[in-house]
Amino acid sequence: MSTKPQLHTILSPRLLDIYDVTNSIVVIIDVFRATSTIATALYNGASRIIPVDTVDKCIQLGKTTGGITAGERDGKIIDGLQYGNSPAEYSRTFIEGKTLVLTTTNGTRLLHMALQSGASEVVTGSFPNISALCDHLITQKKNIILGCSAWKDRFNIEDTLFAGAVIGRIKEHFTIHCDSSLMAEQMYALHHNDIKAFIRHTTHWHRLAAYGLESDLEYCVSPDLANILPFYRNGDLVIA
Amino acid sequence: MSTKPQLHTILSPRLLDIYDVTNSIVVIIDVFRATSTIATALYNGASRIIPVDTVDKCIQLGKTTGGITAGERDGKIIDGLQYGNSPAEYSRTFIEGKTLVLTTTNGTRLLHMALQSGASEVVTGSFPNISALCDHLITQKKNIILGCSAWKDRFNIEDTLFAGAVIGRIKEHFTIHCDSSLMAEQMYALHHNDIKAFIRHTTHWHRLAAYGLESDLEYCVSPDLANILPFYRNGDLVIA
Repeated sequence: MSTKPQLHTILSPRLLDIYDVTNSIVVIIDVFRATSTIATALYNGASRIIPVDTVDKCIQLGKTTGGITAGERDGKIIDGLQYGNSPAEYSRTFIEGKTLVLTTTNGTRLLHMALQSGASEVVTGSFPNISALCDHLITQKKNIILGCSAWKDRFNIEDTLFAGAVIGRIKEHFTIHCDSSLMAEQMYALHHNDIKAFIRHTTHWHRLAAYGLESDLEYCVSPDLANILPFYRNGDLVIA
Repeated sequence: MSTKPQLHTILSPRLLDIYDVTNSIVVIIDVFRATSTIATALYNGASRIIPVDTVDKCIQLGKTTGGITAGERDGKIIDGLQYGNSPAEYSRTFIEGKTLVLTTTNGTRLLHMALQSGASEVVTGSFPNISALCDHLITQKKNIILGCSAWKDRFNIEDTLFAGAVIGRIKEHFTIHCDSSLMAEQMYALHHNDIKAFIRHTTHWHRLAAYGLESDLEYCVSPDLANILPFYRNGDLVIA
């Protein structure tokens, strides 16, 4: 009998409470673009990122912390906030040493849900930090939930592909009896050589490419360009 | 601009209410085994099938209708009911002209949810009746929801493969901007030549094969062995 820890993949925040998350590591995945932006801003020296679920909270925390306020709804910068949810906005010269207060559509919500569900650790993942994430998951030897943020609770391809990429790298270390994980792994295996072409078929691509964000989306599926691991601790996302 | 009707796939009953189901045809998919059994019993001459969500209701309706009571929970026949949820139980010599009162874990629940959501028509599909289903969907020219029953709300591979098989056959007639549908179509394309081998990797296979149901499961992924279309009308599943 195997004593390896278990790994499950959830395809929508709506499905999180089906699983026992207690004492597990939950990986928040929002490839387009929250968790790509989070990795990038921290990689480039942001002192911390405060993820919030409402615009009002974002503006208020921007005032009290002196942080930069940023966020998007439906792919567009929100009135009253200073910046958007594009990793390209957060260069080192701009973000180093600063606090970023970030509100996003899907990723932030799942981050808060994961914490409330009793996870022992909440981290974020996307292609720009895939190696740092996988190295951590292998060494911890704990149960894992790969949590796809989806789009307004609807299944999306890009978060699934990332889950599949992670599973392909770490599966030898885990017990996996989970059809979502099996599907994700196979979808990534099918497309790892044409991922920048394939993401052009996703609904999210059509939504965001209308705003001229093609280069952003290609960045978000490029491995290890911001290879640090964000941990969610005491309300902040920080590097360990 | 396209005037084709839309097609979406939902991967769990939990995700049904995200979509506008009004005036749509909802296809209930529970390959292992409710919708395979439903097609088979009607194909073999059952006068009607009454799907119910509780065992008590099943027993009660069995008495008032004189019908055969049948059902499973977690793949096993329920105490107090006469038969299970295996298509092999419902030969013509046994079921012809009879009423079947059926309670199942996942399929029955989604059937009731679909009706309550305002769908204009609710039908059931599985590989044994795939051609009858696809012919109907093409001629109706209405919006379609392919509803995977899943397993206790968890994504499953076999319902997804069936959704993908349907999409592969009918996609020219519909507008499809839906990542679930794209994934389902690709998963089926990947496995249509090895489906009986591939289903051995699913969690459901491991669950049910423990009860010696391998031949049942292979039947459930074989096309057109019970090629009729069950409609859900006034509480009964019947052939049009």
